[in-house]
Amino acid sequence: MKKKVTFLPDNLTIEVEEGENLLSAAAAAGLYIHAACGGDGVCGKCKVKVEEGDVLANKAMQLKAEQHAAGFRLACQSSVNQDLVVSIPAATSKDGKALKAKPKTTRAISARSLDHLIGSWQVAPPVEKRFLKLDPPTLEDNVPDLQRLMRAIKKKCHDCAEPTYDHPELLMELPFILREAAWEVTVLLLRGKRSEEPDRIIAVEPGDTTDNLYGLAVDIGTTTVCGVLINLNNGEVIAEASSYNDQIGCGEDVISRIIYSQRPGGLKALQEKVVRTINAVIESVCKKVIINPSDISYIMAAGNTIMSHMLLGLNPKFLREAPYVPVCSHFPLTRAAALGIHAHPSVRLFLYPSVASYVGGDIISGVHACQMYKSPALTLFIDIGTNGEIVVGNEEWMVCAACSAGPAFEGGGIKHGMRANSGAIENFNIHPQTLEPMIITIDRIKPCGICGSGLISIVSELLEAGVIDQQGKFNRNLNHPRIREGADGYEYVLAWGKDSLMGEEIAITEVDLDNLIRAKGAMYAGYLTLLESVGMTFNDLDRVIMAGNFGAYIDLERAICIGLLPDIAREKFYYLGNGSMLGCQISLTDHVRFRERMTVSSLITNLELSESPQFMDHYMASLFLPHTDMSLFPTVQEKLPRK
Amino acid sequence: MKKKVTFLPDNLTIEVEEGENLLSAAAAAGLYIHAACGGDGVCGKCKVKVEEGDVLANKAMQLKAEQHAAGFRLACQSSVNQDLVVSIPAATSKDGKALKAKPKTTRAISARSLDHLIGSWQVAPPVEKRFLKLDPPTLEDNVPDLQRLMRAIKKKCHDCAEPTYDHPELLMELPFILREAAWEVTVLLLRGKRSEEPDRIIAVEPGDTTDNLYGLAVDIGTTTVCGVLINLNNGEVIAEASSYNDQIGCGEDVISRIIYSQRPGGLKALQEKVVRTINAVIESVCKKVIINPSDISYIMAAGNTIMSHMLLGLNPKFLREAPYVPVCSHFPLTRAAALGIHAHPSVRLFLYPSVASYVGGDIISGVHACQMYKSPALTLFIDIGTNGEIVVGNEEWMVCAACSAGPAFEGGGIKHGMRANSGAIENFNIHPQTLEPMIITIDRIKPCGICGSGLISIVSELLEAGVIDQQGKFNRNLNHPRIREGADGYEYVLAWGKDSLMGEEIAITEVDLDNLIRAKGAMYAGYLTLLESVGMTFNDLDRVIMAGNFGAYIDLERAICIGLLPDIAREKFYYLGNGSMLGCQISLTDHVRFRERMTVSSLITNLELSESPQFMDHYMASLFLPHTDMSLFPTVQEKLPRK
Repeated sequence: MKKKVTFLPDNLTIEVEEGENLLSAAAAAGLYIHAACGGDGVCGKCKVKVEEGDVLANKAMQLKAEQHAAGFRLACQSSVNQDLVVSIPAATSKDGKALKAKPKTTRAISARSLDHLIGSWQVAPPVEKRFLKLDPPTLEDNVPDLQRLMRAIKKKCHDCAEPTYDHPELLMELPFILREAAWEVTVLLLRGKRSEEPDRIIAVEPGDTTDNLYGLAVDIGTTTVCGVLINLNNGEVIAEASSYNDQIGCGEDVISRIIYSQRPGGLKALQEKVVRTINAVIESVCKKVIINPSDISYIMAAGNTIMSHMLLGLNPKFLREAPYVPVCSHFPLTRAAALGIHAHPSVRLFLYPSVASYVGGDIISGVHACQMYKSPALTLFIDIGTNGEIVVGNEEWMVCAACSAGPAFEGGGIKHGMRANSGAIENFNIHPQTLEPMIITIDRIKPCGICGSGLISIVSELLEAGVIDQQGKFNRNLNHPRIREGADGYEYVLAWGKDSLMGEEIAITEVDLDNLIRAKGAMYAGYLTLLESVGMTFNDLDRVIMAGNFGAYIDLERAICIGLLPDIAREKFYYLGNGSMLGCQISLTDHVRFRERMTVSSLITNLELSESPQFMDHYMASLFLPHTDMSLFPTVQEKLPRK
Repeated sequence: MKKKVTFLPDNLTIEVEEGENLLSAAAAAGLYIHAACGGDGVCGKCKVKVEEGDVLANKAMQLKAEQHAAGFRLACQSSVNQDLVVSIPAATSKDGKALKAKPKTTRAISARSLDHLIGSWQVAPPVEKRFLKLDPPTLEDNVPDLQRLMRAIKKKCHDCAEPTYDHPELLMELPFILREAAWEVTVLLLRGKRSEEPDRIIAVEPGDTTDNLYGLAVDIGTTTVCGVLINLNNGEVIAEASSYNDQIGCGEDVISRIIYSQRPGGLKALQEKVVRTINAVIESVCKKVIINPSDISYIMAAGNTIMSHMLLGLNPKFLREAPYVPVCSHFPLTRAAALGIHAHPSVRLFLYPSVASYVGGDIISGVHACQMYKSPALTLFIDIGTNGEIVVGNEEWMVCAACSAGPAFEGGGIKHGMRANSGAIENFNIHPQTLEPMIITIDRIKPCGICGSGLISIVSELLEAGVIDQQGKFNRNLNHPRIREGADGYEYVLAWGKDSLMGEEIAITEVDLDNLIRAKGAMYAGYLTLLESVGMTFNDLDRVIMAGNFGAYIDLERAICIGLLPDIAREKFYYLGNGSMLGCQISLTDHVRFRERMTVSSLITNLELSESPQFMDHYMASLFLPHTDMSLFPTVQEKLPRK
């Protein structure tokens, strides 16, 4: 249920979800409220006056009784659970002048909510179970056990093609299972890769076990492995779990993992570690719904090319050396148990194919999930991370590329950078006159660092307020205690020691700005190079789909302001969430959708940007906020301070 | 080169192969020469006089100089190497009367010599090698290693379908093989099961190894495992070897092996033993032509259903229990190395499918080899052994059955029975008046026992001479030293102690005769029951094809005389030799013929004789020499002594 909040004196009304934090609501409305402690309720600066309705107080507010009685509340400690009218006191906006409210912050639309993007899917998984009552053999009818089983399957499915099998262990057990189960068994069938291919028998279980049919979708991230358990009889997600990838001890990023893999025994160790992580995820989801890991009938996984190679024990050596050649792009359908995964010995693990060394199965899975290969709309699909992956195309063609953006968006290479965990500054407003910060952290505790979305907010706010220039350099003429020359050059202090979680000052430095500019520059140069390669421009784009959780938290205005996203109509932006996982889930539930993955692979072409002169030119031109060519950013041009 | 031998006084001329033994030549002409020592040259009874030409003497003849000068020779020690006229002295045929020569012994025609039976085959094996020069990867062309390989294969074979692969180990080595071989490699491809199926990559080798392409055909017999090594580049057989099946220590016949397999660890032991035997055969053939076992690119094997189950580690328990159900009939294409066979890890072992518990892949392989599934001629295909297997049919349909004939034809259950080894009596004539024997043994040494073909000769000769009656009982009225009541009832002494290898008497007893009658009766009842099941009679038969080495040595007249073979025109009989091995060899050399095996499997239907009342009726009627219904044996009727 949405609630309305009207902020005075601007008389600006915003709709928010019930339960939304009032400080965040103000930030979303583009309103500045002084907030130094990230929303922890300790600095006491974010006082507002509730004029109509009342808020739900989250915490004992540090306000005097008479203030409370007069309707004052700490915005950061207030939840909206009814329509409100709230006035932001003059004192709070410091100099009493009413600030001109900035355009409302915009978020991309969730692609998941839109049928025309993700589409619907039926519950018709690539594995199915059939309960069969076989005729016991007689002298007149003594065909072999396997043939009797095949016959019953064919009869049950109204004379479909005869299934195949490829599993000698199945044959070893079959005669005993059939007889002990008095010829009443359940077969687990894997549907053919294409509709004309026969099904494959992968297991035979005594009795009727058709009620138990589970599938596991696994997103094998460099950092985190996530698993989603699905009841394949109704398509429902019944448990989720995630675990840090055990390989982290061998290196934070893929490059250091590849280096580790070249040690004696290194590849084997890495393979075992990711398998151990997957096993932990399996154990965790199975515990939640009290099923046995051996009840899982299919595993669909996606990961980047390096993770995929390592899971299968393929040597990633040449992924790292020019010309960056993977061993293969389509991975064989593997028996999970053969890799050491705790699953029924016959259960298959499908791994999404890669396109290139740095455009992996996680991207293909996302492209598969969002169906850009089925739409005439020209779509830019992006996944922002250490390696930014970009796909451009439509139902007729697709090109993709990876660009090494560097880890700035994941908090790497940023002095006080951190992942998007509790205490990370995720939202930031600056008072245009006082240049004081309004800081909102994840979980609204005292700040301990800056995450990707916070970084984008900070840089765009500093730029708009004129604190930094388009080259990312601090305005040396501003005389302000927060802007100073620190150990690492010029910086802006986001939080004083007293307001931070660890008691240490948190600042953003010129070095940080430089890293961010390189990261966003690489992405933007990537979009441009790919579009140019097919003779297109940003004007031709119908949609931008952002994969990764990041997309949901990005403020479009600010991301465009710094040049991370192209300056096109905001309603063209969508976020997909974890596309890698979504593709696995859809494929696991609907074999028709699953078969369509072949189309994705066949349409997509990789471009190698790393040594392309066009890319380098675009990259150099993008090392500016938002860009050296301001005609590409008309809306940003308007709001930047005149020089 | 054929040579003519004219025997006087009968003036009977016979053509024999150059080098043929003169005693055997006389026997083939149906002429009796007294011969007691099996052809060892020691009894000195088989003296003949060479009238024109001369023989090649094999051994110092125990003849006086004047006898030699007069032209006398020992027939058993003489080879024919020119045209001869030979007179059999009156003394030799004892009472001086010229014996009416019996119809010339007839042999079946070798099917191998006949194109319309075996057909021709091209050298186009199911595996092929292709030498490829790959374009080294560049930044503009950095497709994955596997894809690069696939592309080169497709280009080489003029845009055939993209091959598949299924061998994760291949992917592990691939990047290193390609780079170490400077992108010049040879791929080993397995052609698809059907022409529309894509090839499968099974190995990649550095450099050009196309000159080395070898295949192994293996006949996995209960007693003996035979291997034939074929150069698949020209289809030539380059080495052969055989070895006793190591499983013999666990039981002579399949039933005792099945019983052994039910002990704890029994099945595993049996599997290991047959694998060890196959490895010994591989080692032996490879040594002969100095190649490495890992150079073998494909293994085609055939064995009976029990041997096939055991090789794959499938439990044969239910093969032995009514209703005799195998685990499967089509065996999965297996990696030989996975079974423990010393071969390249990627090499596949194909095992001919079975039809039923007692009609196995050895029979299917034989039927496949002789192409009865491609001809309109109604064919009776038989393999005589402990279990007689019978197939009747043509290009439109086939029915098969097994009948438990018992081991008489392999020397089992016969007092002095033995396998067809040195010293086994393989041919026998009786002097119709003196009832003295003419014995010829394998390798013409002193006799030490009786093999299958000898047994058939002995019984038919005793029957024709009136020594035994049609019930297989000795004529108690004959007063002859060789016919007597021994420890096991009535018997005929084939060799006195002085004439035998071990110094012991060799005789055939009434118990032996009874066992033989049961064995041949089961076969004949099998033919009849199968033919009746499809509304046919012996008159409808166009051909009889005998598989197994036995067929080459059987004297048709005698086999018909005892009722083992039907009394039809002799020119309808063919022998195939080891059909099981032949099928493997053809399949290994010609993938088009190999693919046709599917037709065999799809056409053939098994009948279970063991508890069929019709079979039991026919069996009872067949327990007579040759049969209770003499109208089925018109030519035998004529030559048997009038009652």
